[in-house]
Amino acid sequence: MQAYLDLEQRFARLHALGDASGILGWDAQTLMPDGAAAGRADQLAVLKGLAHDILTAPETADLLAAAEDAGTGLDPWRRANLREMRRAYLHAVSVPRDVVEANSRAVSRSEMTWRQARQDSDFASLAPALAEVLRLQREIGRAKGERLGLTPYDALLDGYDPGLRQGRIDPLFAQLRDFLPGLVAEARARQAAEPAPIPLDGPFPVERQRQVGLALMGAVGFDFTRGRLDVSLHPFCGGATDDVRITTRYDEADVTRALLGVLHETGHALYEQGRPAAWRGQPVGEARGMSLHESQSLIVEMQACRSRAFAGYLAPLLRDAFGREGPAWSAENLYRLHVRVEPGFIRVDADEMTYPAHILLRYGLETAMIAGDLTVADLPGAFNDGMRDLLGLQVPNDKLGCLQDIHWPGGSWGYFPTYTLGAMAAAQLFQAAQAAQDDLVPALGRGDFTPLRTWLRARVHERGSLLDTDGILEEATGAPLGTAAFRRHLEQRYLGTA
Amino acid sequence: MQAYLDLEQRFARLHALGDASGILGWDAQTLMPDGAAAGRADQLAVLKGLAHDILTAPETADLLAAAEDAGTGLDPWRRANLREMRRAYLHAVSVPRDVVEANSRAVSRSEMTWRQARQDSDFASLAPALAEVLRLQREIGRAKGERLGLTPYDALLDGYDPGLRQGRIDPLFAQLRDFLPGLVAEARARQAAEPAPIPLDGPFPVERQRQVGLALMGAVGFDFTRGRLDVSLHPFCGGATDDVRITTRYDEADVTRALLGVLHETGHALYEQGRPAAWRGQPVGEARGMSLHESQSLIVEMQACRSRAFAGYLAPLLRDAFGREGPAWSAENLYRLHVRVEPGFIRVDADEMTYPAHILLRYGLETAMIAGDLTVADLPGAFNDGMRDLLGLQVPNDKLGCLQDIHWPGGSWGYFPTYTLGAMAAAQLFQAAQAAQDDLVPALGRGDFTPLRTWLRARVHERGSLLDTDGILEEATGAPLGTAAFRRHLEQRYLGTA
Repeated sequence: MQAYLDLEQRFARLHALGDASGILGWDAQTLMPDGAAAGRADQLAVLKGLAHDILTAPETADLLAAAEDAGTGLDPWRRANLREMRRAYLHAVSVPRDVVEANSRAVSRSEMTWRQARQDSDFASLAPALAEVLRLQREIGRAKGERLGLTPYDALLDGYDPGLRQGRIDPLFAQLRDFLPGLVAEARARQAAEPAPIPLDGPFPVERQRQVGLALMGAVGFDFTRGRLDVSLHPFCGGATDDVRITTRYDEADVTRALLGVLHETGHALYEQGRPAAWRGQPVGEARGMSLHESQSLIVEMQACRSRAFAGYLAPLLRDAFGREGPAWSAENLYRLHVRVEPGFIRVDADEMTYPAHILLRYGLETAMIAGDLTVADLPGAFNDGMRDLLGLQVPNDKLGCLQDIHWPGGSWGYFPTYTLGAMAAAQLFQAAQAAQDDLVPALGRGDFTPLRTWLRARVHERGSLLDTDGILEEATGAPLGTAAFRRHLEQRYLGTA
Repeated sequence: MQAYLDLEQRFARLHALGDASGILGWDAQTLMPDGAAAGRADQLAVLKGLAHDILTAPETADLLAAAEDAGTGLDPWRRANLREMRRAYLHAVSVPRDVVEANSRAVSRSEMTWRQARQDSDFASLAPALAEVLRLQREIGRAKGERLGLTPYDALLDGYDPGLRQGRIDPLFAQLRDFLPGLVAEARARQAAEPAPIPLDGPFPVERQRQVGLALMGAVGFDFTRGRLDVSLHPFCGGATDDVRITTRYDEADVTRALLGVLHETGHALYEQGRPAAWRGQPVGEARGMSLHESQSLIVEMQACRSRAFAGYLAPLLRDAFGREGPAWSAENLYRLHVRVEPGFIRVDADEMTYPAHILLRYGLETAMIAGDLTVADLPGAFNDGMRDLLGLQVPNDKLGCLQDIHWPGGSWGYFPTYTLGAMAAAQLFQAAQAAQDDLVPALGRGDFTPLRTWLRARVHERGSLLDTDGILEEATGAPLGTAAFRRHLEQRYLGTA
C-alpha cells in the first residue's frame, strides 16, 4: 500500500505541473504580449522536461512494480488509478529523450512554416517540415507500439483515447461511409424544396454577444467560481482543474458562430468541472479521452442546443439581447439556420451531417501515411481526390484543402477520428438520457439543462478514467460505441422520421 | 569554465521556473476564479519545490565550488553572476524543503483569508493563518541566518535587498524620525495658510481612466510588446522577463489614485524591461533588490510625475480626456493636489512626507515579531499605539489598521523598509540625474521622459545585479544611500527652500 500511496503523491505533483502548463498555455493564447513568446516557450519546455523526468525516473518504475505486486487489495478506483499510472509511464518511457526533443523542435518549426504556407496556399513550402514531423511520428508510433504491443498507428491513437484501436474504428467508419451519402442527399433535397431560412442581420456588438454567451454558459451549468470565458483566435477549452477556461472569438456580423462556439466549449468545460472530486490530481480522475470529450461538447452544442426545443428558448433571448424582431428571429427560423446542411471545404465550419466525411478523409490519409503507404508529396492529390469522392467538391487550392488544419503539422496524428467517434457517442448518450428522463427535451425549451447535466454528471463526468470509453458508454447506454444512434439522430432531425 | 557554463544552464532553467511562477502569481491576483485558489497554491508550491531541488542539488554545490576555484579568469559580469549564484544557493540550501513547501501553502491560504478578513475588518479570522506564516518566517530567518552568519531579520532582509542589514537601516531611520516630524508640521502649517486646492469632481469613467493610464505608460516608456496593464485589488508589478505586467485599481470618484498608481508601477516596469539583455535568465541580470526597485517607481511617481513641471503636461491631457475645464483643472491646482500633505490611515494613500512614518511603524513591529518580542494577538494594539505616536491618529478599526497590507499575510517580512529606503534613493538619483542633464525637468513638462529614462537605463537598469545597492548608488550619484537628498527634496518641494 505504501508504494501505491507514494505513487499518488508523485502523480499529484505531475498533475500540478500539468495544470501550471495549462494556465500558461491558456495565457499564451489569450493575453500574452508578443515579445513574451520565446520566454513562454522556454517555461513550457522546462515544465515538460521536469514532468518527463519525474514520470520516467527509475523510482517511478520501482514504485509501479511494487504497487502492482501488492495491488490485489486495492479497490476498483485505486486499481484503475494504478493502471492509468502504468499507462502514462509506458507512453513516456518508450520514446527516447532525443526523439521527444527532435519531435518538439520539428513540430515548432513545422507549425510556424504551416501558418505562412496556409496563408500562401503553398504546400511545397511546408512539405519538407511536414515530412520530418511524419518521420518522427512514425518513429514515436513504432517505439510506443513496441512497448505497448500495438501497431504504430494504434499506439498514437492510444495517446488520445486509451484503448482505441484501428480495428475498432474501421467497421464503424465503414458503416458511416455506407449510409451517410444517401442521408445527406435526401436531407439536401428536402431542404431545397423549402424556402431558405432568413439570415440574421448584424451588427451584433461584441460586449452584448459576450453577455449572452455568459448567460448561456450559466444556463448549461458552467461553474463560474471554477472557470472563465475569454477571447482567443482559435476557440478552445483549457486551463486547469477547478480553473476551466474556455475561449471564443467574436464577429460583429455573425452572432451564431460565437454563441454556438461558446456552447460547444461549455460542453467540454462541464466534463472538466464534473470530474470526480475525490480523485482530483490523480490519473483516474482525468477525463477518459478525446472521443468522450468531444461527445460532451457535441451533446451540448449539436444534440441539445441545435434542437428545435432549445431554439424556442434562444429566440426570445436573442431578440431581447439585440433588440430585434421579425420573422428572421422566430424560433423556427433560428432552428433552420442551425441545422442547415451544406457541403463545404472547411472542416471546422461543417454541419454535423457532412462533418464525418472530412474525418473519414483525414483518417484514411493519416493511417496510410503512418503505414508508409502515402508520402507527403502525394498528400495534396490524395486529399483532393478524397474531397471529390466523399463530398463531390473540387478543391481549388491547398488552403481550402490539405493545408487547412493544424493537426498534422502540429504533430497530432491519431487525433482526427475522435471528432466523429465523439459525434456518435453524443447521439448515443443523448438518446439514453432522453429515454431515462421524459422531461429532458422539454426542459431544454425552458433553458433548463438540469436533467441532461445531472444524467451526464453521474454517468460520464464523475466516472473519470475508471473504465475505458466503451466501458463508460456500455454502463451509460447499455451498448458500446456504435453508429445506430447517430444515424437515428440524423434521420429524425434532417428527414423528420420519428 | 565548463563548470561555470553548466551553472548558467542550470540557472536558466531556474529562471524559467521563476518566470512561470511569476505569471501564475499574476493570474492569481487578477483573473483567477476563487475556486481555483487551492489548486493554484499547489501548483506554485510544486514549482517552488522543484526549483528548490534544482538549486540545492549536490551537483549545484559541486559546480559552484569548481567554478569558484577556476573563477579567476572570469570577467566582472561572470564573476558577479557566480557570486549571485552562490548567494541564491546559500539562501535556498539553508531552508529545509518541507519548510519551503509549508511556507508556500501557508502564504497562499493566508493571502486568501486576508482578502475576506480585510473586507470584514475581522482580524480574528486572519490571526491563525497569520500566526502560521509568522512561525514559518521566523523559522526561515533562523535557518538562513545560521548559514549566512546573520540575525534572522537580517537574513530575511537579505532576501529582498542583498547586503541590506538592520544595522544599516537603524541610523538612517533614526535620522528620518529626527527631522521628519518637524518638516511635516512646517509643511502643514504653510499649507493651512493657503487656500485649499480644489478637488477634482468625478465621476471619471473607468475605461477613460484606463486609456489615460495607457497613454501615460507610453509616455514614460513602457514597452507594450513586452508587458500589459490590468486590474487587481492591490496594485503591483509582476509577470515575467519580457512579460512585465502591472496592475491598478480604478475608482470612478478619484482619477488621481489610479493614474499615479499606474505611473508608480510603470517605474517598476521600466526597471524590469531595462535589465541587461545580455544577462537575461541569469542571476546577475536581475534587478538589484527591492530598495532600488522602489526607487525606480518613486522616481517616476514622486520625483517626476508629482513635480510642478509634469503637472503642466498632465493638466491639459486630463482636461481633454474627461472633457472638463475651470480652475480645478489648472496645472497649479493639480500640482497642489499631488503634493498635499495629510496624515492618514492608509499607507498606500500616504503622501511622500508622512509615508515614512507608516514604514517606521511596520519596521518596528515586524522586527519585534521576528525577534519574538511581539505576538500576532498583540499586533492590532501595537499597530494602533504606533499610529497614535507617529502620526497622531486614532485607528478606528483593523481594516484601516494592521489589516490594510498584504505583506505580512503574504509572507513578505523584511520587505517594508525598502519602501522608504527606495524613497531616499529616488531623491538621490533624481538629483544626480538633474545635475547631469539641464533639460531633464523641462522635458517632463512636455511629457518627455527620454532624458530621465536614458540616464536611469544606463546607470541603474542595465547594471542588473553587478554591484550591491550602495555600489550602484555610489557609481550613479557619487555617494552610498543617505537621507540628505531626500530631506533636500522635501524641503524644496514643501517648504519652498531652494
